[in-house]
Amino acid sequence: MADKITPQDEDYSRWYLDVIRDAELAESSPVRGSMIIRPYGYALWEAIQSGLDRRFKETGHVNAYFPLFIPMSFLEKEAEHVEGFAPELAVVTIGGGNTLEEPLVVRPTSETIIGHAYAKWIQSYRDLPLLINQWANVVRWEMRTRPFLRTTEFLWQEGHTAHATESDAVEETLRMLDVYCDFAENDAAIPVIKGLKSDREKFAGAVNSYTIEGMMGNGWALQMGTSHYLGTKFAEAFNINFLDQNNVNQFCHTTSWGISTRMVGAIIMAHGDDQGLRLPPVLAPIQVVIVPIWRKEGEKAPVMTMVERVRSALVDSGIRAKVDLREDQTPGFKFNDWEMRGVPVRVEIGPSDVQQESVVFARRDQLGKEGKTFGIPVAGVAEEAHALLNAIQSSLREQALRGREEKTHRVSSYEEFQTVLQEQGGFLHAHWAGTTEDEERIHDETKATLRCLPMGTEEGEGKCFLTGKATNKTAIFARAY
Amino acid sequence: MADKITPQDEDYSRWYLDVIRDAELAESSPVRGSMIIRPYGYALWEAIQSGLDRRFKETGHVNAYFPLFIPMSFLEKEAEHVEGFAPELAVVTIGGGNTLEEPLVVRPTSETIIGHAYAKWIQSYRDLPLLINQWANVVRWEMRTRPFLRTTEFLWQEGHTAHATESDAVEETLRMLDVYCDFAENDAAIPVIKGLKSDREKFAGAVNSYTIEGMMGNGWALQMGTSHYLGTKFAEAFNINFLDQNNVNQFCHTTSWGISTRMVGAIIMAHGDDQGLRLPPVLAPIQVVIVPIWRKEGEKAPVMTMVERVRSALVDSGIRAKVDLREDQTPGFKFNDWEMRGVPVRVEIGPSDVQQESVVFARRDQLGKEGKTFGIPVAGVAEEAHALLNAIQSSLREQALRGREEKTHRVSSYEEFQTVLQEQGGFLHAHWAGTTEDEERIHDETKATLRCLPMGTEEGEGKCFLTGKATNKTAIFARAY
Repeated sequence: MADKITPQDEDYSRWYLDVIRDAELAESSPVRGSMIIRPYGYALWEAIQSGLDRRFKETGHVNAYFPLFIPMSFLEKEAEHVEGFAPELAVVTIGGGNTLEEPLVVRPTSETIIGHAYAKWIQSYRDLPLLINQWANVVRWEMRTRPFLRTTEFLWQEGHTAHATESDAVEETLRMLDVYCDFAENDAAIPVIKGLKSDREKFAGAVNSYTIEGMMGNGWALQMGTSHYLGTKFAEAFNINFLDQNNVNQFCHTTSWGISTRMVGAIIMAHGDDQGLRLPPVLAPIQVVIVPIWRKEGEKAPVMTMVERVRSALVDSGIRAKVDLREDQTPGFKFNDWEMRGVPVRVEIGPSDVQQESVVFARRDQLGKEGKTFGIPVAGVAEEAHALLNAIQSSLREQALRGREEKTHRVSSYEEFQTVLQEQGGFLHAHWAGTTEDEERIHDETKATLRCLPMGTEEGEGKCFLTGKATNKTAIFARAY
Repeated sequence: MADKITPQDEDYSRWYLDVIRDAELAESSPVRGSMIIRPYGYALWEAIQSGLDRRFKETGHVNAYFPLFIPMSFLEKEAEHVEGFAPELAVVTIGGGNTLEEPLVVRPTSETIIGHAYAKWIQSYRDLPLLINQWANVVRWEMRTRPFLRTTEFLWQEGHTAHATESDAVEETLRMLDVYCDFAENDAAIPVIKGLKSDREKFAGAVNSYTIEGMMGNGWALQMGTSHYLGTKFAEAFNINFLDQNNVNQFCHTTSWGISTRMVGAIIMAHGDDQGLRLPPVLAPIQVVIVPIWRKEGEKAPVMTMVERVRSALVDSGIRAKVDLREDQTPGFKFNDWEMRGVPVRVEIGPSDVQQESVVFARRDQLGKEGKTFGIPVAGVAEEAHALLNAIQSSLREQALRGREEKTHRVSSYEEFQTVLQEQGGFLHAHWAGTTEDEERIHDETKATLRCLPMGTEEGEGKCFLTGKATNKTAIFARAY
């Protein structure tokens, strides 16, 4: 910890980078726009992977792996797709010392190469639905990068499914949106808004793109996951067709959906405070850190004996617990250090705790005296820790939800929109009947983008805040990463 | 299953490709030398990953992620390294529409980019040892490829560690060799020979490379994992140094070690037979398949009730069990199909089994009547299945060991070497004091390569089979993939 973390109010972007540096989540690499994910950041990603992968398998998906390289000609088969991705491609032109006849694109996403395989695998309605996910790295040549949020190379999962009918495919698209929502709210403790992307913001080649949008600590939006209904566009481009029950040849309806290492950025920004990270217990690589406290040499042995008892009780009950054994640092330093790293619960064990057969719990989500509980009996330490971890998980989500509600504003005119955005920021929710050009104008004039048309908020008819047209649709706008 | 699997004796290479096709493990892709790993093959790789990752973590390692792209200049910093890898590189020359000033290599292995990071992370002896593993894809432009065994892109893990002393680093190198051996023998059920690679066969840039070599069904060798002691070569190239306890600046001693998707090929070839795959229960994606048998409509309901009871008893006890619900296939077809896919245990449940409250077990490692057990009581089905899976795991390893012993030959002259190799194949074990040039000559004349100088087989002095020189070293030669 060379420097102190910049306070959020002073410079939120600086705060974000400071936390990533001090908590050793990631660092820049000598390769432009690519980051190194350090062990603590990667452990968080492993927890995210595990929570998602379990849900994918529970909903009938299997994993597979497709090539990193895609022939350039494949991308060109779907016109909107190549138009969207062409400016961002990294291209291999030399292999084994020779110039390649056809350049190979490093995958920016895999609809095309997977579509080519699906065309071979799918012959009949009996082969459907085909439900496959891939964990992979992808590359998009980005001009302005920011660790986890936008990097040239990133890690993600991309689901690709094929179905016999539009309704099956749309159902899958929305099912996976719900899976993402469930993960975000229950594992990452981040409340999200599910909604439809506008044409301007949708995936290159999709019919409809759905998103989960979270609010970060500064009121900006972050797209945390997307699920796309691709219609028959890729099926037509790659000839993914099947014989239906009546022996009629039909194009498949396909979907794709993805969540990336960006989720790590979401967790940092949705929960972090001026002391650093605050990790949701479900995903925290270390859920409980135990800090032994002793001064005189004679105190050490009994303290360490109890530390080990508590550690093994926690680990045996399934808690990811770690003891801070450093002898060249004071307890005070360690408290700050683990608070900065976002560990949800700290257990303090000193000589007086040994005498009383009890320990002290300190919550990361409530710093200072209010967050401390004294006299937790050693006999019940695992049970109490589980209860506290559950409470912190809920509390973080509650805090994030309250923050979002406080920073969500209804507006009814463009003037109000601009004033509120400038003075308060956050999410601006309004009736909306604008066009792509209207969105672009708003973006140019205010830097806010249309995040989504939120689902499940039927509110009846109103007037579009920009055009005044009558509509029953609403949209959420915000500054976004 | 369009065509029948070619018998091993007729054409072992064809057999291998047929099994991969019919068991739907992988298939070729439109990208030269890159394969698609299909869900069943990928599930096997997930089981391999899980068995290795657990062992890495138990031995104190953590995972991290480093960039896919490496600046060409990095590779050039270690002379032997770049010489070894230069002919196999895929090179990105265009990014975001522009020609790059410095071409980026798609990583063939990550010693250089990781070495660059370690130089920043390591300052003091207190930062050592640094024990990191990465799960990643790598690319080596191969001229002749074969699914799983040699592909342009492959998946692997690469461990990279840094230590204060030579002895610490050598200890780590050998510890990870032992971890690999433990995984191969206990999870993959493949007995392996641990040994030292010759200079000709070692990793480009290593001081010493250690290997685990397995014997495949046709007597050929397969290098299944390697662990390298890199000395201070990469530390000197990348300035990975530290202040020791006496405040003296020292270079670190580093190691690297890797196992790849080649392990899938090893499992296919070490255990497979003319009926197809035989998967070791520890790694099998499906450990038990249940085939319901009924003819009349009235039999179906009671059979399916018992099938579900058995399935849930197995799953609840931690067994990966699947019911074959297909109604358009006969039981006989299903038996063959799951045998071909290598599922260790088949459970048959028909109307008479329902009446007797019992089921039939059939072992994949013993086909026909001998492998069947009738009248397993439903009440104890999970316990019996666990016992049988354990027995099959041991039996597969025993069979592979017996096969290796039968095909391992001691030879004492080059004439004998050539005769035995031609007539019987397998591993040729002999005293050895030859040079790199001698190895090359043997390779040119016989196609056999020096697999390793096996460890732990001190046999006293003898005469080199080729040169006649006295030596106490022995070597194993074989045809190899």
